[in-house]
Amino acid sequence: MTQLRRDPVVGRWVIVEDEKNALGPEHYEKEDHSLKERAICQFCPGRENQTPPEVDAIREHGSHPNSSGWFARVVSNKFPALRIEGELNKRGSGVYDISNGIGAHEVLIETPDHDKNLADLSVEEVERVIRLYQNRSNSLARDKRFKYIMIFKNYGRSAGASVEHAHSQVIALPMIPKYVAQELEGAEEYYQRRGKCIFCDMLRQEEEEQERIFAQNEGFLAFCPFVPRYPFETWILPKEHLFEFGEMTEKGRWQLAEVLKDVLLRIKKVLQDPSYNFYLHVAPINFDKKFGFYHWHIEIVPKLTREAGYEWGSGFYVVRTPPRLAAKYLREASNQ
Amino acid sequence: MTQLRRDPVVGRWVIVEDEKNALGPEHYEKEDHSLKERAICQFCPGRENQTPPEVDAIREHGSHPNSSGWFARVVSNKFPALRIEGELNKRGSGVYDISNGIGAHEVLIETPDHDKNLADLSVEEVERVIRLYQNRSNSLARDKRFKYIMIFKNYGRSAGASVEHAHSQVIALPMIPKYVAQELEGAEEYYQRRGKCIFCDMLRQEEEEQERIFAQNEGFLAFCPFVPRYPFETWILPKEHLFEFGEMTEKGRWQLAEVLKDVLLRIKKVLQDPSYNFYLHVAPINFDKKFGFYHWHIEIVPKLTREAGYEWGSGFYVVRTPPRLAAKYLREASNQ
Repeated sequence: MTQLRRDPVVGRWVIVEDEKNALGPEHYEKEDHSLKERAICQFCPGRENQTPPEVDAIREHGSHPNSSGWFARVVSNKFPALRIEGELNKRGSGVYDISNGIGAHEVLIETPDHDKNLADLSVEEVERVIRLYQNRSNSLARDKRFKYIMIFKNYGRSAGASVEHAHSQVIALPMIPKYVAQELEGAEEYYQRRGKCIFCDMLRQEEEEQERIFAQNEGFLAFCPFVPRYPFETWILPKEHLFEFGEMTEKGRWQLAEVLKDVLLRIKKVLQDPSYNFYLHVAPINFDKKFGFYHWHIEIVPKLTREAGYEWGSGFYVVRTPPRLAAKYLREASNQ
Repeated sequence: MTQLRRDPVVGRWVIVEDEKNALGPEHYEKEDHSLKERAICQFCPGRENQTPPEVDAIREHGSHPNSSGWFARVVSNKFPALRIEGELNKRGSGVYDISNGIGAHEVLIETPDHDKNLADLSVEEVERVIRLYQNRSNSLARDKRFKYIMIFKNYGRSAGASVEHAHSQVIALPMIPKYVAQELEGAEEYYQRRGKCIFCDMLRQEEEEQERIFAQNEGFLAFCPFVPRYPFETWILPKEHLFEFGEMTEKGRWQLAEVLKDVLLRIKKVLQDPSYNFYLHVAPINFDKKFGFYHWHIEIVPKLTREAGYEWGSGFYVVRTPPRLAAKYLREASNQ
């Protein structure tokens, strides 16, 4: 029989298939990621003048901004959904609130190598990407108009990537996205009631049960959450209670790079290079209030086909690969 | 410049493109809906013995259950995600709540005609479908284990339909789905603060502004909401404040059938027969509490491609066709 499970942070119920009827990785359709844009790619070295100007980069000593010699670089989005110049001009219109589309919309090019994606980079190269996530977070947070820095990656067409060269996106928003607001609310309530962090309790339970963990090191734990929305959904949490992403140390960055690469490689192996999205869930910025009850983390969602997990009636999820089984596949896969 | 808009019910912010840079219907990819399963379709008349037994139907006078002569019929799902027999057995497991997958999962076959979809049916035929929605709602509500009846339709592969013969799904759940819980919370808060229904206020604002309405009759209003998640998203609301879907009168059913058919035909014309999902948003059942502050409605989401509207960072929507423009296209389309 299927099981109904409730997410303790946001209160979402999902239906999880029983293991007898579960779908394995072979069930899910494969996607073609053959590279077609190499000859015209604006993110490739030597074409730096085809992107908007660089806002940050990690470069070879002596190389110049907006020229080659970079390991990873951040540029403004050529077609930004939000613009940095102007006033928010918050206003009402009947029952609605409106403001101008002010924000920042940046693209982080993760490697000069058109043929590689994040999973294929070395730990050293992944650490640079994470360092740029931090740099941009900390820099954009100085603009008091912004309340949240959203960092995410779309890999593959069916995950929404419109450019094939490996990249992430960094977006500064003048408000808190709904999904974070919900997590904050749930985490705060739990903290007030029990005096503990809900994510720390989840970590402890994962470590006790040892059923859904598939990668870890001293600093980070990767597991398939007990209440997923999608098959093979994966979370990476810092083992220590940390709510400020920007304050992660250099050591933390290296640890995260190691686990993130490991996780992405296992997903690539087990699901035959699926498209995926990942999202950093971090605390808001520029509030008087502190978000000490929160615990930042990364959520990774392989984009499998509709026959996979699916969403019923706008917000009710059915997951046909139980997380225990997904974690088993991922744990037993080679991470090379 | 884009605009940030806040949904007043659930508090979700979305980015809406400005009209200068808006995408028209021609932008969105087309999907092939050619019918391939006619010869083997289990939902076609004459193959009633290939489905699970009928739980309800509207039939020609004198015809028998589980044989031909039906106009629309409801059967149990052959591969149910929830089963009707058994105990919920609610229990905790550390920070998680669990229960057995108890519920009902039914399929409503909307027409005997394999070649037609809901938009192609007559108003009389659509009324029968709505009547069965009501019958099943009212019947399943008698089972006190159930807290919510979810009714929805997936049309087309990319909207998740696994069978091409026109059908809807009816699911009885032992808990309230998150998206409804959020709407209830927002509607109740608004009601407590202002003594009015938020959806009634929204209706009034739509009628005053006359910018986003594209179909209506005496009983129902169809419009593209000011804060959509997806391009061409459409809501149908009863004009009168009604929170119990099951209590809609026969007259109401005919009015709804007329508007629903009109809306689906316009969407079919303007977007060249896209896949779509629609969901009834109704009040929960079997609570001591009354949900008089709620206002049931239908939400219709054409399933356009990723390049269309898209979701950023798990819960932040960017909509590249402003609702005023979407409504204009839909209003000016032929509804024949």
